[in-house]
Amino acid sequence: MRFPATLAAATAALVLATGASAQNFQKPEDAIKYRRSAMTVMAAHFGVLGAMANGRVPFDAAAASRSADVIALVSHLPAAGFVPGTDKGETRAKPEIWTENAKFKGNYDKMVDAVGKLSVAAKTGNLDTMKAAFGPAANTCKACHDDFRKE
Amino acid sequence: MRFPATLAAATAALVLATGASAQNFQKPEDAIKYRRSAMTVMAAHFGVLGAMANGRVPFDAAAASRSADVIALVSHLPAAGFVPGTDKGETRAKPEIWTENAKFKGNYDKMVDAVGKLSVAAKTGNLDTMKAAFGPAANTCKACHDDFRKE
Repeated sequence: MRFPATLAAATAALVLATGASAQNFQKPEDAIKYRRSAMTVMAAHFGVLGAMANGRVPFDAAAASRSADVIALVSHLPAAGFVPGTDKGETRAKPEIWTENAKFKGNYDKMVDAVGKLSVAAKTGNLDTMKAAFGPAANTCKACHDDFRKE
Repeated sequence: MRFPATLAAATAALVLATGASAQNFQKPEDAIKYRRSAMTVMAAHFGVLGAMANGRVPFDAAAASRSADVIALVSHLPAAGFVPGTDKGETRAKPEIWTENAKFKGNYDKMVDAVGKLSVAAKTGNLDTMKAAFGPAANTCKACHDDFRKE
C-alpha cells in the first residue's frame, strides 16, 4: 500500500487541530459505538507494545513505533463520544464521567500526554526506553477504567 | 485537551511507516473486531463530511479538515485485520476478499488514495473542492462494499 506524500502535512495539521468534539452523533448509541471503536483500535496496538514489553514477542522497533503512533493519534478521538446521556446501552461508562467531569477530563488529558510520550519513546528504537514509557501510559488507562468504567 | 509538540513528527513517521500488518491477532474475532472498529471510526467521520457535502449542516472548514485527516490516517489500519480465515463470525466479509485478494487489495489502495486526496481537498477550506473529492472517496468505499461485503 502506498501513501500520498501530502499526508504527512495533513497529519501534522490533524495533531494540532483535533479537539474533543469531532462530530455530532445522531443517536446516543452512535456516540457509544464510536468511542468504543476508537478504544478498541488503541487497545489492539497497546497489545502489540505490551507483548514486546513483556518479552512475549521479540522487540520490533519499527512495529513498536508504528503502534505507538497509532495509539497517540487515536487517543484524541474517544473524547468526542462521551456526550451526556450515553451512560446507558452497550457501554460500561459510569455516570461519574459526567458528574465528575473535570476529574474525567483530567484523567483523559493525562492519558493523551502519556501515550504521546510513549510514541516518542518508541521512536528511539530502544526497548528499555519504550518499556519505561509503556508502564506509565498503561497506568493512565487503568486509572481511568478503575474510576469511570463498570466491572 | 493539549497536544505534545512532538506528535507532529510522530505522525509524519506514522504515515510513512504504517503498513498492512500492524499486529498479530490472537483470535480471528480479534482481527474482525479491530478492522470493524477502524471502519466505524472512518464511517463516523465520513458522516461529518457527508452532512456538509449534502448541505444538511453548515460547512465548517476546520471540522471538515479534521475529519478528513482522521479518515486518511485510519484508512491504513483495517487492512491488517483481513487475515485469512476471518470471513466467519461477526462479519460481513465475503470469502472473495481472500480468493480474489489482488482485486481486494487494489480496491483498498484506491480507497487509501482517494481519502488522501479528500484530506488535501478538505484543507483548502473550500466546500466545492471538498465536495469534488468527497464523491470519488465515497465511491471507493461503495465499490469495495459492493464486491466484498455481504448484504
